[in-house]
Amino acid sequence: MDIVFSYQQLYHFTYSVFKSIGCSDEDAATATTVLLSADVRGVDSHGVARLSGYVRLWQAKRINATPGIQVVHETPSTAVVDGDAGLGLVVAPFAMQVAIDKAKNAGTGWVSVRNSNHFGIAGYHAMMALQHDMIGMAMTNASALVAPTFSIERMLGTNPIAVAIPAGKESPFVADLATTTAANGKLEILQRKGEDAPLGWVQDVAGNLATDASILKKGGAMLPLGSDREHGSHKGYALGSIVDIFSAVLSGASYGPWAPPFPAYVPVPENMPGKGLGHFFGAMRVDAFRPAEKFKAHMDNWIQRFRNAKPASGYEKVLIPGDPEREMETIRMKEGIPVVESVVNELKKVGEMMGVGL
Amino acid sequence: MDIVFSYQQLYHFTYSVFKSIGCSDEDAATATTVLLSADVRGVDSHGVARLSGYVRLWQAKRINATPGIQVVHETPSTAVVDGDAGLGLVVAPFAMQVAIDKAKNAGTGWVSVRNSNHFGIAGYHAMMALQHDMIGMAMTNASALVAPTFSIERMLGTNPIAVAIPAGKESPFVADLATTTAANGKLEILQRKGEDAPLGWVQDVAGNLATDASILKKGGAMLPLGSDREHGSHKGYALGSIVDIFSAVLSGASYGPWAPPFPAYVPVPENMPGKGLGHFFGAMRVDAFRPAEKFKAHMDNWIQRFRNAKPASGYEKVLIPGDPEREMETIRMKEGIPVVESVVNELKKVGEMMGVGL
Repeated sequence: MDIVFSYQQLYHFTYSVFKSIGCSDEDAATATTVLLSADVRGVDSHGVARLSGYVRLWQAKRINATPGIQVVHETPSTAVVDGDAGLGLVVAPFAMQVAIDKAKNAGTGWVSVRNSNHFGIAGYHAMMALQHDMIGMAMTNASALVAPTFSIERMLGTNPIAVAIPAGKESPFVADLATTTAANGKLEILQRKGEDAPLGWVQDVAGNLATDASILKKGGAMLPLGSDREHGSHKGYALGSIVDIFSAVLSGASYGPWAPPFPAYVPVPENMPGKGLGHFFGAMRVDAFRPAEKFKAHMDNWIQRFRNAKPASGYEKVLIPGDPEREMETIRMKEGIPVVESVVNELKKVGEMMGVGL
Repeated sequence: MDIVFSYQQLYHFTYSVFKSIGCSDEDAATATTVLLSADVRGVDSHGVARLSGYVRLWQAKRINATPGIQVVHETPSTAVVDGDAGLGLVVAPFAMQVAIDKAKNAGTGWVSVRNSNHFGIAGYHAMMALQHDMIGMAMTNASALVAPTFSIERMLGTNPIAVAIPAGKESPFVADLATTTAANGKLEILQRKGEDAPLGWVQDVAGNLATDASILKKGGAMLPLGSDREHGSHKGYALGSIVDIFSAVLSGASYGPWAPPFPAYVPVPENMPGKGLGHFFGAMRVDAFRPAEKFKAHMDNWIQRFRNAKPASGYEKVLIPGDPEREMETIRMKEGIPVVESVVNELKKVGEMMGVGL
C-alpha cells in the first residue's frame, strides 16, 4: 500500500508547498532538503509525513514563512539565535552555520536557539559540520510526551541528540538518537498496523508499563531510554533534561511541559516561560585538538576495529552509528522513496489546498 | 559489617597514602578530595575502595606520582592536555581548570586529555564549573567491559557522562551517568552479596542475557544503556562510543578495547594506538548565552516544575539529577562514611605496606 516516489518528485512537490506558504526560493530549498533528508535516510516519521503539519502550523499563524532570523547575543565561541517563529527546517541550518563559523575562529562554536519550530532530523544539522573537518552536534526540545522516572506526567519531549564525527577513508560516525527507549515514529507505525508495543516503551495513565501503542491518546506517556529505574531510565530522563536545558533554558525558549506542541490543533500551553521551541548546536574543529589527518586516520582505525568486533550468534557484523541510514540512502536514491498511502492522501489534500499537484 | 569512618579519618589516611607514593602536598590533597567525593556522595565503588588499586598501578610503574602535566595544543576555546601518566585524580582537575579558564575568555572551553589514569567520579570535575556560573561537563573512557549491540566482544568502558548546571535558589542539576544499564559498582555489590543481577544488565560469553553478577569473570560483558536492541541498546552503545572518541581519539589516548585496564595485574593491551586513558571536559559560561541571573531564575523554575511533576503511585516525588547524591553527602558528612569490611582490610594492608596507619 506504499506508493513509491522519486526523490525529485517529492522534492518538487515539497518545494512548491513551502513556496506556496510564502517562503523565499532559498528557504524553500533549504526546508525541502532538510525535510527530505529524513525520508531518504529512512526516518519516515520526520520527513514528508510532517509536511501537512507544518502547513497547518503556518495556517494557525504559529510559523512565520518570512522570518528575520538573527544572532541576539554572542561571544567568540557562542551565540544565541532568535528564529522569529520561522520553520525550524530553516532556522536550524542558519544556527548550525553560525556554530561552524565560530569554530573556524575560536576552535569550537556553540549556538542555542529560541523561537523556533520542529527542525526535522537532528542528524542533518550535525552532519553539516563534516565537510569542514569538524565534529557536529545538534539537539532540540519538543512537545512533552515523556514521563520522568517515578512520574506519570509528561514533562519532556523525545529530545534527540545527534553527533557527527568525520573519518578518513571510512564513512563518518553519525549517531542520531531520541533520549527515549523508542522514537515516537515507531509507536505511530505500530498503531497504524494495530500491533502492540514491546514492554518498556510506554506507560499507562497510572504509570504501569503498557503495550498499547496508542496509549499516548489515553493519557499515557513514553519512557526515557532505560525504560524503568532498574534498567537506567533515570539516565534517559537526565539526558532528555540536559537537551531541554541546553536548547531552551540557555536560549530563552519554552521548556519542559511548556514546549509548544507540533499538532496545530493542540493549543499552546499557557504562561510559556520562553519563546517557541529551542535547539542547541555545536561544532568542534578537529584540528583544534590534533592534526585532522591524524584524527581521521585514528577514526578509520576505531571504525574498522568496532565493525570487526566479534558478532553475537545470528548477526553478521557490528554496526557503526550511521550505517543503517547511509545504506537506506543509497537504496532510496536509486529505487525511490516509499510513502504510506495515508500520508500520500494527506499530501494530496495539502497540495489541492495550496494549488500544488503531487 | 561496615565500619564507619569520619570524613576526616579517611581524608588523613588517603592523603598520607598519596604522600607515601611521592605525590606533592598539593597533588595529594587534590587526589584525596576528588577520591573521597565519591564516598561522600554514595558512589562507594569509586572512592577509597579504589585506593589500593591506584597504589598497585604506581608499584607497576603505570602511574607517575610526580607528573609534568601540560597543555600540548590549544586554540581560544580548546586544549589538549598530556597527563604524563599522572593520577587521573590530579590530571582531571588540572584539565577542567584549563577548560574553565578558556571559557572565561572565549565563552566556552573544551579540553581533551591523553596519557591519564582513572579520574574518580566524573561529577566532581563537572561540578568545578558551578562556582563560576558555568555549565560543566566531564567524561572519560575506561577499560573495556561493555559489548556493542549485536556483539559478544568487550569494546567500551562504562564511559560516564557528567553534566553540572547551576541554578539560583535551588541546588544545581548534576547528572553523572555511566552509559551502561547499570554501573559496574552495582554488579560488584551484588557479587559480594551472592545475589543475581536483573535481566538486562549483562550477557554471557555467547551473548545471551544473563543474571550471573560475576559473569564478567566468565567472558561475559556489560550491556549498553537500553539493554537490548528493542529497548535502545544501540543508543547506549552510541553514547559510550562518543565518550570514547571525544576522550581518546581527539586527544591521542588509547581507545576502545585498547584502553588500559585499572587492575594492575591485567597486562596493558598490545599495540595501544595512543597514550593512557583519555578524558574530555567542557565549561560553558552561562552568560555567554544569556544573563546569568535570568538563566538561574529559569533553572529554579525548571527544577521546581519537575520536582512537582505528578508522582506515580507509591512514589513521593520526582527527583532532580543530583538529589540523591546531595542528600547522601549531608548524611555522611554528619554521621560518617560506612566502608565494607573487605575494603577496610585492603586499606589496612596498603597502610602497613606504605607505613600509614588507618
